[in-house]
Amino acid sequence: MNPKSVIACDIGGTKTLTALIDIEGKILFKERHPTPKQSAEQIVELVSARISKLPGSQGIDKRSILGVGIGVAGTVDMENGLVVSSPHLPFKNTPLKQMIGDSLKLPVLIDNDATLAALGEQKFGIAKGIHNMVMMTIGTGIGGGIIIKGEIYRGTTGGAGEIGHMVIDVNGPEDDCGARGCLEALASGDAIGEMAGGISGEQVAQSAGKGDQNALRVLKRAGKSLGAGLANLVNIFDPEMIVLGGGVMIDDKIIIEEAKRVVAETALKPNRDTVRIVISELGEDAGLLGAAALVIEKVNGER
Amino acid sequence: MNPKSVIACDIGGTKTLTALIDIEGKILFKERHPTPKQSAEQIVELVSARISKLPGSQGIDKRSILGVGIGVAGTVDMENGLVVSSPHLPFKNTPLKQMIGDSLKLPVLIDNDATLAALGEQKFGIAKGIHNMVMMTIGTGIGGGIIIKGEIYRGTTGGAGEIGHMVIDVNGPEDDCGARGCLEALASGDAIGEMAGGISGEQVAQSAGKGDQNALRVLKRAGKSLGAGLANLVNIFDPEMIVLGGGVMIDDKIIIEEAKRVVAETALKPNRDTVRIVISELGEDAGLLGAAALVIEKVNGER
Repeated sequence: MNPKSVIACDIGGTKTLTALIDIEGKILFKERHPTPKQSAEQIVELVSARISKLPGSQGIDKRSILGVGIGVAGTVDMENGLVVSSPHLPFKNTPLKQMIGDSLKLPVLIDNDATLAALGEQKFGIAKGIHNMVMMTIGTGIGGGIIIKGEIYRGTTGGAGEIGHMVIDVNGPEDDCGARGCLEALASGDAIGEMAGGISGEQVAQSAGKGDQNALRVLKRAGKSLGAGLANLVNIFDPEMIVLGGGVMIDDKIIIEEAKRVVAETALKPNRDTVRIVISELGEDAGLLGAAALVIEKVNGER
Repeated sequence: MNPKSVIACDIGGTKTLTALIDIEGKILFKERHPTPKQSAEQIVELVSARISKLPGSQGIDKRSILGVGIGVAGTVDMENGLVVSSPHLPFKNTPLKQMIGDSLKLPVLIDNDATLAALGEQKFGIAKGIHNMVMMTIGTGIGGGIIIKGEIYRGTTGGAGEIGHMVIDVNGPEDDCGARGCLEALASGDAIGEMAGGISGEQVAQSAGKGDQNALRVLKRAGKSLGAGLANLVNIFDPEMIVLGGGVMIDDKIIIEEAKRVVAETALKPNRDTVRIVISELGEDAGLLGAAALVIEKVNGER
């Protein structure tokens, strides 16, 4: 018999990853494509094509595939397989599960990308065995995933974990979400670039690395905001661990140090003394591994 | 056989309530005393005396008492029966469970007062049958309790739910907790009184009722801050319900209306459209009934 494996897919605002993952969480093959921006149909076409070619291209029998897990940067109604909305993708009440699943004859599960990143870290990464944790993904925007008592917490409609839209500066700059001074408007890659005069977040980090004082100031400010957001999460969830992932976090130590200082000074005891604030171990693979874990759990649950 | 009942106690910053409650959540008798402020021993003395007199004073056989549930305004380590700290009471790593339980020969359970208020509303009040909810108690300070999948969520150390210390205005006024612009510094009874020039929160509400423009402005400002905090909770938890309790909330409609407006305008969809933001049904009894529910659950669980 063929060893079983899973197809995982992570549809982000910029790139789409597809991978073949075994049931121990080992990535057998991974590929990346730019995410099409024009329509949901284009995205479905790309993802469906990659999924159906993936097993054969790796010499794997399609019958050994347990199912397909898909993470999407957006609000997902998991039960009905809908992407309700997405800030950076052309989805609006899109029946993504059906659109992709119909042609595949495989079980398809979709979920929010940051939620799956949290699950990935908890099953296969730095949060293995942790029962209560919050994952924060800081890239272009800021996403979040919550694990409570060892399980993903999705809330009433699947919209839980939107920690990027937590307001920490009620008089701060306005965000696309309609609120002022939410974390995403103050500490995301986009926000950092904007604060530095309209360049990209990466450029700010590079300049800071060369000792540019303005870039350093901007990163410290972002770190201070991030710290206030993390302190809020520490006070609210009293989690064992907060995992920071996404491009900005992995690149930038200045932000993290400043944020940790704010947590140590302003979060409440005993919470602040027990929480571990750590960097993602799985990096860009966290969402893929979470998508795989979701499928594996579901299939095992049905046995 | 005697019908079973429970003794419940709510030790607040100002008053201490003790009550005899039957296992259906009916309060058979309730009394109130000012909370002694000098020492933990004084509080233990008061509470122990009331507890031991309560059954007899109501003609109830002590043997029909299932146990004693105690809510405390502070951070509680429930497992070890410790009050770790308290902003307004003389507790500091106080082994309250042991101090009260030793002389009683009854099971004693202690927990945070706002957490118990959440449980009270969920078992016997407006949140009956609700699985995911957040309770916010707004009095002198601001406390919180979280129910996830029908159960109290306490976090890693028992410190979860400190939503009063959620920062929403990182450049705002400093609070005793060490942070700037946390909800408690902007929307609690004390904060409202201070914003109005050092009077009490009740006086502000009274003046506003008489049309005083400054008092109205202060209440609107508090409502705006409260709304930002509630929107954060809606985005993070996507709860079915948020229950508002405590003195300030029950008295003041201006704050609530303003807060709901902010939630409707700034929280994310679909969360903001499904959440119900409601006023506590049990009022000052919420904590007592939660304490009773805790004891009843525990005793039933052990059968």
